[in-house]
Amino acid sequence: MTSKLRCGLIGATGLAGQQFISALQNHPYFKLTALAASPRSAGKSYADALKAPNGMMGWFLTEPLPAEIAKMTVVAGAELTSKDLDLVFSAVEADVARELEPKLAKDLPVISAASAFRYDDDVPLIIPPVNGDHSSLIRAQQKARNIKGFIAPIPNCTTTGLAITLAPLEAAFGVQAVMMTSMQAVSGAGRSPGVAALDIVDNVVPHISKEEHKVEVETKKILGPAGKDHPVRVSSTCTRVAVLEGHTEAAWVSLKKKATVQEVAAAMREWKGLEATRNLPSAPPRWIEVLDDPFRPQPRLDRDVHGGMATSVGRIREDTVLENGVKYVLVSHNTKMGAAKGAVLLAELLRAQGFFGPQTA
Amino acid sequence: MTSKLRCGLIGATGLAGQQFISALQNHPYFKLTALAASPRSAGKSYADALKAPNGMMGWFLTEPLPAEIAKMTVVAGAELTSKDLDLVFSAVEADVARELEPKLAKDLPVISAASAFRYDDDVPLIIPPVNGDHSSLIRAQQKARNIKGFIAPIPNCTTTGLAITLAPLEAAFGVQAVMMTSMQAVSGAGRSPGVAALDIVDNVVPHISKEEHKVEVETKKILGPAGKDHPVRVSSTCTRVAVLEGHTEAAWVSLKKKATVQEVAAAMREWKGLEATRNLPSAPPRWIEVLDDPFRPQPRLDRDVHGGMATSVGRIREDTVLENGVKYVLVSHNTKMGAAKGAVLLAELLRAQGFFGPQTA
Amino acid sequence: MTSKLRCGLIGATGLAGQQFISALQNHPYFKLTALAASPRSAGKSYADALKAPNGMMGWFLTEPLPAEIAKMTVVAGAELTSKDLDLVFSAVEADVARELEPKLAKDLPVISAASAFRYDDDVPLIIPPVNGDHSSLIRAQQKARNIKGFIAPIPNCTTTGLAITLAPLEAAFGVQAVMMTSMQAVSGAGRSPGVAALDIVDNVVPHISKEEHKVEVETKKILGPAGKDHPVRVSSTCTRVAVLEGHTEAAWVSLKKKATVQEVAAAMREWKGLEATRNLPSAPPRWIEVLDDPFRPQPRLDRDVHGGMATSVGRIREDTVLENGVKYVLVSHNTKMGAAKGAVLLAELLRAQGFFGPQTA
Amino acid sequence: MTSKLRCGLIGATGLAGQQFISALQNHPYFKLTALAASPRSAGKSYADALKAPNGMMGWFLTEPLPAEIAKMTVVAGAELTSKDLDLVFSAVEADVARELEPKLAKDLPVISAASAFRYDDDVPLIIPPVNGDHSSLIRAQQKARNIKGFIAPIPNCTTTGLAITLAPLEAAFGVQAVMMTSMQAVSGAGRSPGVAALDIVDNVVPHISKEEHKVEVETKKILGPAGKDHPVRVSSTCTRVAVLEGHTEAAWVSLKKKATVQEVAAAMREWKGLEATRNLPSAPPRWIEVLDDPFRPQPRLDRDVHGGMATSVGRIREDTVLENGVKYVLVSHNTKMGAAKGAVLLAELLRAQGFFGPQTA
Repeated sequence: MTSKLRCGLIGATGLAGQQFISALQNHPYFKLTALAASPRSAGKSYADALKAPNGMMGWFLTEPLPAEIAKMTVVAGAELTSKDLDLVFSAVEADVARELEPKLAKDLPVISAASAFRYDDDVPLIIPPVNGDHSSLIRAQQKARNIKGFIAPIPNCTTTGLAITLAPLEAAFGVQAVMMTSMQAVSGAGRSPGVAALDIVDNVVPHISKEEHKVEVETKKILGPAGKDHPVRVSSTCTRVAVLEGHTEAAWVSLKKKATVQEVAAAMREWKGLEATRNLPSAPPRWIEVLDDPFRPQPRLDRDVHGGMATSVGRIREDTVLENGVKYVLVSHNTKMGAAKGAVLLAELLRAQGFFGPQTA
Repeated sequence: MTSKLRCGLIGATGLAGQQFISALQNHPYFKLTALAASPRSAGKSYADALKAPNGMMGWFLTEPLPAEIAKMTVVAGAELTSKDLDLVFSAVEADVARELEPKLAKDLPVISAASAFRYDDDVPLIIPPVNGDHSSLIRAQQKARNIKGFIAPIPNCTTTGLAITLAPLEAAFGVQAVMMTSMQAVSGAGRSPGVAALDIVDNVVPHISKEEHKVEVETKKILGPAGKDHPVRVSSTCTRVAVLEGHTEAAWVSLKKKATVQEVAAAMREWKGLEATRNLPSAPPRWIEVLDDPFRPQPRLDRDVHGGMATSVGRIREDTVLENGVKYVLVSHNTKMGAAKGAVLLAELLRAQGFFGPQTA
Repeated sequence: MTSKLRCGLIGATGLAGQQFISALQNHPYFKLTALAASPRSAGKSYADALKAPNGMMGWFLTEPLPAEIAKMTVVAGAELTSKDLDLVFSAVEADVARELEPKLAKDLPVISAASAFRYDDDVPLIIPPVNGDHSSLIRAQQKARNIKGFIAPIPNCTTTGLAITLAPLEAAFGVQAVMMTSMQAVSGAGRSPGVAALDIVDNVVPHISKEEHKVEVETKKILGPAGKDHPVRVSSTCTRVAVLEGHTEAAWVSLKKKATVQEVAAAMREWKGLEATRNLPSAPPRWIEVLDDPFRPQPRLDRDVHGGMATSVGRIREDTVLENGVKYVLVSHNTKMGAAKGAVLLAELLRAQGFFGPQTA
Repeated sequence: MTSKLRCGLIGATGLAGQQFISALQNHPYFKLTALAASPRSAGKSYADALKAPNGMMGWFLTEPLPAEIAKMTVVAGAELTSKDLDLVFSAVEADVARELEPKLAKDLPVISAASAFRYDDDVPLIIPPVNGDHSSLIRAQQKARNIKGFIAPIPNCTTTGLAITLAPLEAAFGVQAVMMTSMQAVSGAGRSPGVAALDIVDNVVPHISKEEHKVEVETKKILGPAGKDHPVRVSSTCTRVAVLEGHTEAAWVSLKKKATVQEVAAAMREWKGLEATRNLPSAPPRWIEVLDDPFRPQPRLDRDVHGGMATSVGRIREDTVLENGVKYVLVSHNTKMGAAKGAVLLAELLRAQGFFGPQTA
C-alpha cells in the first residue's frame, strides 16, 4: 500500500479527541487529514482552537502536540465528506453523536467512542479480540438504513476490561453471572468539567450516572452472538476514585462449569482472542496479563502495560457464594484500550475485514 | 456516681492510642489514669515519648493533645495493675496483644482493638447494637481461664460497618449470603509505616493482608448467637484507596425473604439496635443513616456524621444475580466507630451490663 | 437586643453561598431571612434549587443543610430590599457583583466576598484585626456615591493569611518587602467547575489567574492607612496543590528593623489585633498560633484551629538574602477566615462600630 | 569499543537502586554485572531479595523487572572488587555510603547518589552540563586520599533543577542571590518508609529534614569554580506535596545585570551547557525547555520531557523586590535527572573525560 487512509476526527479539541490524535500519530494505515469541532472552533488553527481565554494552551497529554496537527485548520463536523476522507473517528459526546454520526455514516465509515448508537440492533458493539465477528452486522446496517457508510461504536470503557476477562472464561467454562464493583479513574469523565477535585480528593464517589446500566447491557451484547444478547446476568456498582487513568474492577463470576484458580488463570493467560486481531498494529502481545503478586494489578503500575492495550488480572480466588464462583481484580486503561486506541484497533480490524480501505475499491 | 472509672491504655503512643486518648476526653464515666507504651517510651512524659528525633511532635490528630495527658508519665504495659485501675483499653498490635492482654486480663477487664483473641470461642466479638448480648460469653471466659478480668475485643473496622447494615436485614428478612468490595482508608493501616504515599496517590491497592479473612470470619461470629457462627456465606475483596478516613463498602446481600428497595431502606432506617445501647453516652441518635442522594454516601462527606458513630447507607438497589438480592453502598468511620470510639462504646455497654464499675463492688 | 438583624444572601446556592449559610447558623446577631440566586433558581425552595438533574442533592458541606434553610424560597437578587432586610452578604462572582452590589448598596449594607469593588478608593478592604479602622472610608463612600447603604468587601483569601502575619511585624519592626509562594487549596476555586481532578491529582498548577496581582495590590491597601497604600513591595507566585481546604504560604519578609527569630515569634504570639475585634463572636482566642514543631503548620492539621479563624505560623527562620530578612510558613483557612466566616466577622465589627443595626436607629 | 564497562550497583534492592537498574537497561557503554545489597539479601536472586513476607514482589517501577536482572545473585557490597568491575554506582543511604564508598573507591570509581561526601573539598559535585569541568578535582582526590578509584557524587535532587536554571543566568547576567520554595514529590523520600499517605493526602508538609541546607550549600559549590564556593546567597523553603514524581520550584533570582523577561527566557532557551556533554547518550536535546503557557510547567505533564532529563521552566516574570529581580517556576524530575539517570549521565561524562574505561588502560 502506497498511501494511508485519510481520516477525519470529530470532537477533535476535547480530551477524547486529543487522545485520538495521539493514538493516530505515525499510524501505519491511518492519517488524520481533517479535524472537526464545534462552530466556535471552526476556522481556527487547531492550536488556536485549544487555547483558552486565560492563556492556557489546552493540550493535556504528556506527549507534545504534533506540529503538523497544531497548524491544521479546524472545520465543522458537518463539512466532512467522503470526497476527502476514507473514514471518520468520533470523539464527540452522545448528544452530538446522535445528530452528526448518522449524517456522516451516509457515505463514510464512522468509528465512534460515543454511546449514542451502541444499543441499536443493527449496530455492532465490538471489542476486536472478543467479538470482532460482530462486524457482520454492518452489512445489515447499511441495508436497513440505506447508507454506504456505517456506524461502529466501541463499548463503554468500564465494560471493555470486564468483557475481555470474561471472554476466556466463557470460552473455557461458560459464564452464568457476573458481579462487579468498579473503582474508576477521573479521566473517564473527560475534562470539561470532568470530575471536580473537591469531589474526589480524599474521597470516593459511589455513583456514575448511567454507568451501571451501560455495563450490564453492553456485556450481554458483546458476549452474545452477533445481534443477540448473551443470557449472562450482570450486576455492578460503579464508583469513582482519585486515580487519573486506569479503571480497577473487582469481579465475581459464576461459571457454568467448575474451575480451579489455576484453570482460570491458565484460561486467561492462554487466551489468544479472535485470530484476525493477532497481527493488527495496535494489538498487544497478550490481551490479558495475569499477575501473581497479590498486591497487583494496580492502576498506576499496570495501566500502561503493552501501551495500555492489555488488561491486567490478579487476585484470582475461589468464591464461596456463587455457584462455581471465582473472583478477581482487573485493571484496564480507560482512555487507551477503553477509548481512542481501542477505536483505532477496531478500525484496523474493520479495514482488515474489508469494510473500507484499498480492498473496498 | 461520684468518681470516674480509672482506665489504663496500652499502645498509648501510636496513632490508635492517640485516638483512644481523644475518644476518652471528657468522658462521663471513664478517665485515663495510666498510659503504657514500649520500654523505649517508659519513664518519659507522654509528650516527650511522642517526639521524634527530627523534632516532629508526633501528635497526629487535629484536636490538640490535652495538656494533662501531655505531662503524664508513660509506663510499661506490664506495670498496669488492678490496684490502680478499673479497666484497660488496648491499642497495641496483635503480636503485643497476644502476650500482654492475657496478663492484664487476670485481674482487669481489657477492651481491645487488637485482633489477637477475636476468634477464640470464649471471647465475644461485640458491636454493641448488633450483638451486645454476646457479652454473656465473658462469664464463661472467666471461668474457663480462671481469671477475674476478661478480654473483650472489637471487630476489624471493615467488618463493623458491614455487620451493622446486615443486622436490620437479618432481623427483618434473614440473610443468606453477602458479597462485598471495600475501598478502605489509609488510616486503617496506622502510621508506622502505614500506607506509603507512593503506593496510593493516583492508585488503588487491591489487597490488604488478612483483611478478607477477618471480614468473612468475624461477620459470621457477630451475626450468630453467642458462641456460634451464623451460616451466612461471606465473600469479600478488600482494597485500599487514597482516602484518609472512612471505609466505603459496596455490598450485595442475598436475603432469605424477598424485599423491595423501600422495605430494605425502611428496615435500616427504623433499626434501633440492642435496647441496652440506646442511651449509652457514645451512641449516635441513629445507628444507620439512609441517604437518598444517589451520589452518597461519600467518605469525606459522611464519615463524621454523628461523631463518626453512625454508618451511612445509600444506593440501595435491587440485584438481579443473587436470590432475593439487594445491593447498596455504605460508609463507616474506621477509626471512630470502627476503632477507638467503638471500643469506648463497648466499655460503656459492659459497664451498663455490670461487668465492671461501681455495680461490681 | 431582642431581635436579630435580618440578612439577605446573594449567590446563595453556590459553594461560597453554602459556606455563608453555615457561618450564619445560630449566629447571635444575624439571621438569614432571604436567599437570592440566579433567575433559574428563583421561586424554588432552596433544597430544590440545589438539586441537580442527575439527582445529586447539591449541598456540599459536611454539616447538614439546616431544615429551615432548605424550605426557604429562593428569590432573585434584585428583589432584596431594605424594607425586609438590615444587611446583605454577597457570595456572587465578580461579574455579578459588579452589577448587583451597587443596586443593593443604595439602601443596604453589603458585606461581600467578591473582588469587584475591592480596589475602589472609597471602598475599605478590611481584615478586622488588621485594619478594622479602615471602615471610616464608608462614610466617604456613602457621600461620594450618594447612597444610604455601602459596599464592604473582604480581601482575597490568599491575601488574608499573609496580611494577618505581616500586621504584628509591621507594628513591631516595620515591613519593607514581602515575597511569598502560595500552595493553595482547590476549594478556593469553588465548584462549578472549580479545579478539575485531572489537573491536580499528582500535580501542582503553578498559576492562578489574577491571584498574584490581587495579593500584591491588596496587601498594600490593607497595611496602609485608610485610603492610602503602604509602600511595602510585594512579590508572589501563586500555585494550586491537591489540598481541599487551607492555603499554605511560604513567606519571606524584609523588616525595617532587624529582629531575631524569637522576637518575630513573640511579636506574632502576642499580637492582639484591633481592640474592637477582641470580643466579636467570631473572633478566635488568638489571631495567630505560632507552632514550634518544624513540620507544622500543615493545612490538614492546622486549618481548622479555632474554627478556621486563626492563622497558623511555623518554621520561622532567619533569611540571608533580604535586608533584615525572616522567613516562615503560614496556613490560613481559605473558606473560613478567608471567606464566609471572615465576612461575618467583618459584619460583626461594622455592627459594633455602628454602621448598621440597632445603634443606627 | 567491543565490550561494555562492567558496573556494580550498591543499594540495588531499594527504590533508588531499582531506578539505577532501569536507567542502565540497554545502555551503550555500561552493563550491570554485580548487584549488592544488605547482608539480609546477599545470596538470594535479585527477584527473591525484593520479595516481601506478605508476597509482594517488591519491584516498584512501571517498566517490568528485566529477566536477566531478576536472576542475578545479590552480593554484599564489600565483596565488589576492581578485578570484576570497571565502576560502581551507589544507591545507598548516606550512613551506609559513609562507610562503604571509601572502601570501594580505593580501587574503583564510585558514582554516587548519596550525600555522604558531597561537601568534602576534594570531592566534585557535578551536574554535567553545569560544572562538568569540576571533575578536575578527582585527580587531587586520588592523590590526597592515595586511592586509585574515586568518589563522584551527584547533588541533591532539589538542587539539580535549580542549579541548571541558574547556570545560563550566571553565564549571561551574573547571579547575586536566589530564593526558592520547593514543592517536592514523595518519591524523593524513597519507599521504606518514605512519606506516609496519612501525612500527604490533602496536605502539604512544610519541612524536609536537612533539605534546605543541602540546597544552599550545594548551589554555591556547583556554581563556583572547582573547589571554591560561588558567592551567591541562597535561601530556600522546602516543602512536600502530594505529587509522585517531579519537583516543582518557585524561584526568585537577583541578577548582577538587569535583564528583561525575554532576555532571561532566551538565555535559558539557548543555553547549551558544557560542550563535552552534548553528545552523551543520556543528554536531552535541550537541557532546559522554556514554556509559554502560563499554567506550565506542571510536574505531571512536564517531568518526563526528554526522558526526565530536561528541566522545564515557565512563568518567567519580572520581580519587584530583588535588585534586577526575575522569578520563574521550574519542574525537574527528581528520580531521573535528579537521581539515577543523572548519575549515569555523570558516568558518561567521566568516561568521556578519560577517568575510567578503555582510554584508561
